[in-house]
Formats: sequence, C-alpha cells, structure tokens
Amino acid sequence: MALHPLVEYADASPEVRAVYDDIMATRKTDWINNFWKALANDPATVRRTWESIQQIMAPGALDALTKEMIYIAVSVTNQCPYCIASHTASARKKGMTNEMFHELMAVVGMANETNRLASGYQVEIDEQFKTP
Amino acid sequence: MALHPLVEYADASPEVRAVYDDIMATRKTDWINNFWKALANDPATVRRTWESIQQIMAPGALDALTKEMIYIAVSVTNQCPYCIASHTASARKKGMTNEMFHELMAVVGMANETNRLASGYQVEIDEQFKTP
Amino acid sequence: MALHPLVEYADASPEVRAVYDDIMATRKTDWINNFWKALANDPATVRRTWESIQQIMAPGALDALTKEMIYIAVSVTNQCPYCIASHTASARKKGMTNEMFHELMAVVGMANETNRLASGYQVEIDEQFKTP
Amino acid sequence: MALHPLVEYADASPEVRAVYDDIMATRKTDWINNFWKALANDPATVRRTWESIQQIMAPGALDALTKEMIYIAVSVTNQCPYCIASHTASARKKGMTNEMFHELMAVVGMANETNRLASGYQVEIDEQFKTP
Amino acid sequence: MALHPLVEYADASPEVRAVYDDIMATRKTDWINNFWKALANDPATVRRTWESIQQIMAPGALDALTKEMIYIAVSVTNQCPYCIASHTASARKKGMTNEMFHELMAVVGMANETNRLASGYQVEIDEQFKTP
Amino acid sequence: MALHPLVEYADASPEVRAVYDDIMATRKTDWINNFWKALANDPATVRRTWESIQQIMAPGALDALTKEMIYIAVSVTNQCPYCIASHTASARKKGMTNEMFHELMAVVGMANETNRLASGYQVEIDEQFKTP
Repeated sequence: MALHPLVEYADASPEVRAVYDDIMATRKTDWINNFWKALANDPATVRRTWESIQQIMAPGALDALTKEMIYIAVSVTNQCPYCIASHTASARKKGMTNEMFHELMAVVGMANETNRLASGYQVEIDEQFKTP
Repeated sequence: MALHPLVEYADASPEVRAVYDDIMATRKTDWINNFWKALANDPATVRRTWESIQQIMAPGALDALTKEMIYIAVSVTNQCPYCIASHTASARKKGMTNEMFHELMAVVGMANETNRLASGYQVEIDEQFKTP
Repeated sequence: MALHPLVEYADASPEVRAVYDDIMATRKTDWINNFWKALANDPATVRRTWESIQQIMAPGALDALTKEMIYIAVSVTNQCPYCIASHTASARKKGMTNEMFHELMAVVGMANETNRLASGYQVEIDEQFKTP
Repeated sequence: MALHPLVEYADASPEVRAVYDDIMATRKTDWINNFWKALANDPATVRRTWESIQQIMAPGALDALTKEMIYIAVSVTNQCPYCIASHTASARKKGMTNEMFHELMAVVGMANETNRLASGYQVEIDEQFKTP
Repeated sequence: MALHPLVEYADASPEVRAVYDDIMATRKTDWINNFWKALANDPATVRRTWESIQQIMAPGALDALTKEMIYIAVSVTNQCPYCIASHTASARKKGMTNEMFHELMAVVGMANETNRLASGYQVEIDEQFKTP
Repeated sequence: MALHPLVEYADASPEVRAVYDDIMATRKTDWINNFWKALANDPATVRRTWESIQQIMAPGALDALTKEMIYIAVSVTNQCPYCIASHTASARKKGMTNEMFHELMAVVGMANETNRLASGYQVEIDEQFKTP
C-alpha cells in the first residue's frame, strides 16, 4: 500500500470528513483536490492546515486575490509545481487576468534576480532602511 | 581597494550618473541607496537593471504597492536581508500599513509551509489544474 | 546518445563495479537505484559520494533512522522529487512509521514557515543565543 | 517608529500577554526571545504560530529532541541565521551533544549535495520508489 | 483555453515574431523552444528577457561556454528541471564535454554542501575577506 | 563555552593539525580561515571536507578559476554570506578580474530570474532536450 494514499471522502474518518465538508462549503464545490486528500493521512495536520489557511487567506487588509498572487510568488520562487498549478487556478477563479499574471511573473523574476545581485555584491543595508 | 566599492555620484561616469539622475528624479529624492552604488561598478548592469525595474514595477494591471509586496514575498522566501529591508521601506512609502504587512507575512509563511507539505507528500497535480 | 545514460553493471568499469558491489553488499540487495547508475558516468564522483554517504549515514551519536529523516527534511525543503522518493523509501525500510512521517512533515512545514517569519520581521538574534 | 518594534510584556495587549505567559510557563523561564516579541506586532499570528508550534513540537512518534534537530536541518538548508541560532540553543537544552550536532551537520551537508547531483544528472525516479 | 498556451510563430504578433526571428537568426536554427513560446504570452517580457539574455550571455571577459555552465550551476541549485535540461543542451552545443559536465556537477554539489556547513556552524566572516 | 569555538592550531589534535598543515602547504599561506577552524570541532568532517574539496577543485577539464566562479554562483544563489565572501576572495587570488566578476553576477542574476519564469509559466521540457 502506498505511503500516502489519497483519502477519499467515503474512506475518511469523521474528523477528516468535517474538514472536507468545510472545504467544499467554503469553496462552493463538491470537489476536493489532491493536496487535502494526501494531507488527510494525518488528520491533525489536515485540520490545522485548513484552519490556518482559512484564517490567513480571508480578505482583510489585503483582498483575497492579492493573497493568492503572493502565494503564487512564493510557490514559483520555491519551484513547487503542485503549488504553482493549484494557486494559479485559484487566482484565476478569483479574477486574475492574463495581464495580472504576466506582471506578477515579471516581478517575481526580477526580485529573484536582484536578490542575488544584492547578495553577490555583498551590499550593506543602508542606515535609512534600519530605522523606517 | 575593495572589490565592490560604493560608487558615489561625484566619482561616477556619465553613464552611471545618468542612471542616478533618473533614479532620483523618479523617486523624487536626492538619495541613492547602496544597491545601486554597488551595481554601478558595472555600468551595463546598473543601467539594464534600473531600466527593467522601471518597466516591471510601473503600475499596470497590478498597482505599484501590490508589486512591492510581491517583491517582499520573494525576498523573504529567499532570505535576502538587504532586499527585505529595502523593499519593506519602499512598500511603506507606497502606503503599506502594519496590517497589510502582517497579512503579507502570514501568507508568505503559510505558502512556504504548504509548498513543503505538497512536495513531502509527493502530491500529484490534479487533472483539473492542468487544463484551467 | 544521452548525456547521462544509466550505467548498468554489465557495462560498468571495474572501479564502478566495486562501488556497485559494495552498495549491494551493504544494503543486502541485488538492486542499484538510478541515482548511482547516473553518477557512475563519473567514476570519481560515484566513489567519493558513496564513501562519504557510508561514513555519514552510519549509526553514531544519531541512529540510522534519525539520519534518514533529516535527509528527508532537507530534500523536502529543497523540493527535490528524486531525493524525497528515495529517502522516504529508505526511511520506511529502517522503520519509519506513518505517524513518524506525519510528524516529520509537520515539523518541516512549520520550520519553513517560521524561517520566513523570522526573516520577514527582521528579527535580531538574542544575545542569549550568541553565547550558548 | 520602527515597523516591527519588539513588544515587551509591559506594553503587550492581554491577548499577547496570554501567549507570553504560556510560553514562559511551558518553557519554565521568565524570558521571551525576540522572535515572539516581533511576531507580537500581529496578535493573530503570534497566537496561531505558538499554538501550532506547541502541537507540532510536542513529543509523539518522534521525541522532542529529534524534532528540534529536524528544525535545525531545515533552518540550515534555508540559511536562516536567527532560526539556526535559536533552534541550536533549544536542541542543546534538550540534550543535543556536540557529537549529535556534528553528525546532524554532516547529514544536512551531504543531503544538500546529493539533492543537486540528483537534479543535475536529471535522474528519473525508480519504479520501486513509486510504489513503496 | 490554457492560461499559458505556447505561442506558435503562425499565431504570433509582429512584435513576438521579431523576437522569434532574432532567436532563430542568432542561434542559426529554425526552431524555438517552449520557454520562449510560453513567455510570448507577454510580449513585453519575452522581448525584455531575450534582449537581456543576449547582452548577458555574449562572450566578454567570460566565454560563452563558461557562462552556460554558470547558468547550469544556478539552475541545478534551484532545482529547475526545465532550465537544467535546456542549458545542459546549450552547453553541450557550445562544447561542454562529459568530463566538464562531471566536474561542474562535483563543484555544484560540494558548494551546496559547504554552504550549509558554513551556516550551520554559524561561521563568522574573517576580517581578511572583508577587505579584499 | 561556545558550541562551535574556533579551533586554533595550538589547541588542535594531531588529526586536525594534519589537515591544517595540508591547507597551509597547498595554499602557500600560514593562515587558516574560520570555516576550517569551525569545522575542526568535528575532525572527521574537517578531514573529509578538505579531501573532497582538494579533489573537486583541482584543475581538470575545468580550470581552477572557473571552478571558483561556479562556487560563487552557487553561494550567491543560496545567499550564503560567508561562502560569497570567502570564494570571491579565492577567485580574485586566482585571477578573477572585476569584469569577470561583473559578468558572473549578471549571469547568476539572469539565471535566477529565468528559472522562475520557466516554473511560473509551467513550461514543459521540449522533446529535443530529452534526447541530447
């Protein structure tokens, strides 16, 4: 048997089903993506992760789409194919246009470039940035 | 002599001075931060980098503040102290409040966590994410 | 011809065969996994890597299973699919249970999150941590 | 005023004080390290992070010291100076000897090396690792 | 329709065709690889990226092959499968032998290892390295 | 006492002194940099690391300076301040000019950028790159 089988709703414990139900209700869908089905092998982690994501991704000072794009920026920087695919799909559902995606990628690429220029040239932090 | 001395305006070549002038005019300031003074050791790179940043960071489908926050998300993921300090200062100037920063950090932290859960559990990309 | 063909035992030089023989004897198996067959294109590297791994992964102050789990922690953080798959299989053979794997993933995820919170908030190292 | 001042107990809100009290009680100390004081600028994040860490780092299938060493492995891989310093101190308090630390570092170094050899040689995952 | 369809020459705008024409002329080939066809969804990015790469990868103080090998070193460190595959192919065309590739990988692996040993042991930068 | 005190020659064991002697003889210097003094807390690691570096960094199909620049490329990508400082100093001693360093940084920056564009646009590897 696989180490991390995907836990389907029919086979899930009540604790995991409660998470699945909440995911589907929140997203207004009857579908659970593989990330949650894999995490469900560990009920404590699937519940804690879902609860944290719910709190963190809720609109607040930043809107939900901006948060999804930040999620993509991190996932692309870390080169996580699953996360890039899933959060790009999410962001599109929340209204990310092609133009927004293109600009997002341009910024992510540029930041990854200048991060290395700053390190490679051993640039010291300006005093002005230390006492903002 | 240091490998990458900071190039001050007085010592800069006309080509570098043109970049410095443009930076100061664009930012409405008389101050150049260390990143540019270090890059100025290579006039071709300082000019290309500034021109690319100008194009990429200009408001478009995404506003300038959103772009700064994406820059921070990448810099924090890459653990680049200079970039975190400088872009946090920039974002604040463009209107990032404490609340926005806190939510940004929460998303960046969470994305870095779930990126690893997705990889560690070897989650396969759902078909639904392949044909968005 | 491919740049990095897998070097099968039958086609291997005596030097590489000696490494393969040692791998199989150590692991009590008649099977060599792809990592070694690819590295075998460079006999010096396959031998040095195997010798280093032998020394480093041998039980000492840390037992062999703990070392495998640390290997997984690094591989997941670096998002290396091959390494995650191979070291997860190794760890299971050495006795890693599902519960242990779940806790390992939870720690790896959390550490990746708080690493970024520490950087993003530009937290200075406490004096107490400097003189342990 | 600084963007992320360290929030001292005397200046903390009741919500943050409750977290501080719990940290000090759990750790049997009267001292709060800078990480928490910086996070405390965002009460929701400081509480959620502390609660998650409490759950995740509690002894279970893995003991507390093993979990600390996994934390160090991730922090070293990500090159997070604060996290390396603080979790090395924690691990020492929980009984990590010099010998254990040396072996931990040797494994972390080796894993970071072979992660790149696996990627660079474009090694395909063995079928045996896909159905463990 | 896909978010990032590959833009074929026949469907490309004049601006994108100009980039494609330049790529094919420079490389003396009638073939465009997927990276450019994907980037072409954003004409500004495909043009800026191509122009920057042209400038940066041109032989100068470093020859073209050395630059390709540096590109591979970064791509392997970042674990980017596409970039590893494409730049390894490029480097081979420019004369990288198997022996050169093997030595390149050995250095990349070693550097990734010692980078973590330096961080994990919290080694302070020697004064001698600060004033080169 | 510190967890990783720097081991000075006078206090070193014969095994560590042998490594130090070899480092000084090889480099024609009477000075040992902090990296080795910190690693020397673990005699097995300091010896294995030095021996591996000796083998890997020796001129072969690639010359010693090219290898140092590849080391820098990795260290900058990983954002390791110690490694950037020490290997930049080494490379300069081996003849790296300012122009070479500038071009190296430009390539490293660009590669870090395009690595993310390739991932973010989810570019599939061309068949042509799979059978080189």
